[in-house]
Amino acid sequence: LILAHFDFRMCCCFGEKNAGFDILYHNMKHGQIATKELAEFVRERAAIEETYSKSMSKLAKIASNGSPLGTFAPMWDVFRVSSDKLALCHLELMRKMNDLIRDINKYNEEQVKIHRKTKEEVIGTLESVQSLQVQNSHLQKAREGYHSKCVELERLRKEGVPQKELEKAELKSKKAAESFAGSIEKFNRAGRDFEQKMSESAQKFQDIEEAHLRQMKLLIKAYSHSIEDTHVQVGQVHEEFKQNVENIGIENLIQKFTDQKGTGKERPGPVGFEEYLSPLVSENSKKSRAKAFRIPGLGKRDKEPDSM
Amino acid sequence: LILAHFDFRMCCCFGEKNAGFDILYHNMKHGQIATKELAEFVRERAAIEETYSKSMSKLAKIASNGSPLGTFAPMWDVFRVSSDKLALCHLELMRKMNDLIRDINKYNEEQVKIHRKTKEEVIGTLESVQSLQVQNSHLQKAREGYHSKCVELERLRKEGVPQKELEKAELKSKKAAESFAGSIEKFNRAGRDFEQKMSESAQKFQDIEEAHLRQMKLLIKAYSHSIEDTHVQVGQVHEEFKQNVENIGIENLIQKFTDQKGTGKERPGPVGFEEYLSPLVSENSKKSRAKAFRIPGLGKRDKEPDSM
Repeated sequence: LILAHFDFRMCCCFGEKNAGFDILYHNMKHGQIATKELAEFVRERAAIEETYSKSMSKLAKIASNGSPLGTFAPMWDVFRVSSDKLALCHLELMRKMNDLIRDINKYNEEQVKIHRKTKEEVIGTLESVQSLQVQNSHLQKAREGYHSKCVELERLRKEGVPQKELEKAELKSKKAAESFAGSIEKFNRAGRDFEQKMSESAQKFQDIEEAHLRQMKLLIKAYSHSIEDTHVQVGQVHEEFKQNVENIGIENLIQKFTDQKGTGKERPGPVGFEEYLSPLVSENSKKSRAKAFRIPGLGKRDKEPDSM
Repeated sequence: LILAHFDFRMCCCFGEKNAGFDILYHNMKHGQIATKELAEFVRERAAIEETYSKSMSKLAKIASNGSPLGTFAPMWDVFRVSSDKLALCHLELMRKMNDLIRDINKYNEEQVKIHRKTKEEVIGTLESVQSLQVQNSHLQKAREGYHSKCVELERLRKEGVPQKELEKAELKSKKAAESFAGSIEKFNRAGRDFEQKMSESAQKFQDIEEAHLRQMKLLIKAYSHSIEDTHVQVGQVHEEFKQNVENIGIENLIQKFTDQKGTGKERPGPVGFEEYLSPLVSENSKKSRAKAFRIPGLGKRDKEPDSM
């Protein structure tokens, strides 16, 4: 990964009170907050999907309680099946979200370990930051001391004080210059040490940050994939619902109804005069006559199962 | 619409006690129940979508409360925008469901009017059903009367009773036969009347039923379309989310962070000895020297806005 102008070594090593180290260290720690917040977000999403799934099951129940009477009755089954399937889709999404939460928490644990290890590794950099700050304050004092001695010497020269007094002031100024030079050397040494250590730490923070963001993006991708899968499934359920509604024609509904409730397709003929026949007459001729007339609602045929 | 074997006229006019009329009349009334149940189902769906929408708004809130610190911070905006858009999609579906409920209720009102009108139109058929039942019971009595008189006559003949008594019995049997024949005529007349009226009513019930199922299927299609539209919109929101996540590279996140939090890109050189110069020396030479050394954390430059 090439981060031309924007990596931590370029942007966070220098500046006011060497605050870069603090900023990078705390940014690393904020990575843990981001992970926890992502888990919280996904947990909320899982809860939403669970509620939606339960509501869909309730909706399926409403469909299954639809009146079984009337021609419309078979349609409720289509609604029930579809709602039940939607409930399952969202329940599966909830499960996937719960799996994802486990992955996020697992990553968070690794993150804590890495940060603990890193803290130990960068302690030297923190010490060199502090040392540089100490040297810096010494340097300021030495510079001020040297300058005030020079001002004093110049004043004495202008006033034309005795040579001995002038020599004393010159000695003081010379010593202050030496102290200033010594402070400069110590400061620069601390500066070089800080620069090297800070550069290493910044690289470390950079690597950790890149790995962290890479991991976070992987977790988000898993979130996104699960939602996408569910979206495709839900689309299939809708398509199926549409097809089922299409397939159950008005004709089918009326047929189903007449199959169940129809009172018979055989149209009775008119009733004719049944002449009295002595029981002695053969069964044969009786049967042939019995066929001629049937009174609706009284003939045995009407009670046969196929006409009910 | 051709309903070869399954229309009401074919299947529901005849049979046990002419129950077909009752069945068809009550089926028509069940149409109102189906309409009310469909409205109830859609109302529940609307409520589910409203709850889901509200939950998504809450989720967006969680995203917007994501920590603004650290490199991950800008990602929360992607989550927030996506969740807010999902909330809107489902809110719109809720609105469409509410519009649909209004349509269903409007249809239900029309249905009530049609059924009231139809009840008046088929009252004649109901009367003819009742009349046929009355004639049927008369017919049974007349048939039994005729047969018992015939049995009686046969018995007297076998016993060889006096001619006068036999003639009396023959007259009774003849009268019973006439009464039976009269009942048959009345019954057949009532049967023809019933058959014609029932056929008309069955056609009327058939037409009402077909129109009802057609209307119900239209309402279900509207339900299905709304859900489909929302599904497409939700898919777009997901696609957008995926793209946004893809577009915010690790590089971008680190750049944004260093833009905000970077402590300066300018690397300080080593500090050198600054010889004391009397204020009398020209500003020019002072400037050129000042450029040589800058102590981190003290130079004015470090306080310039671009390095904060």
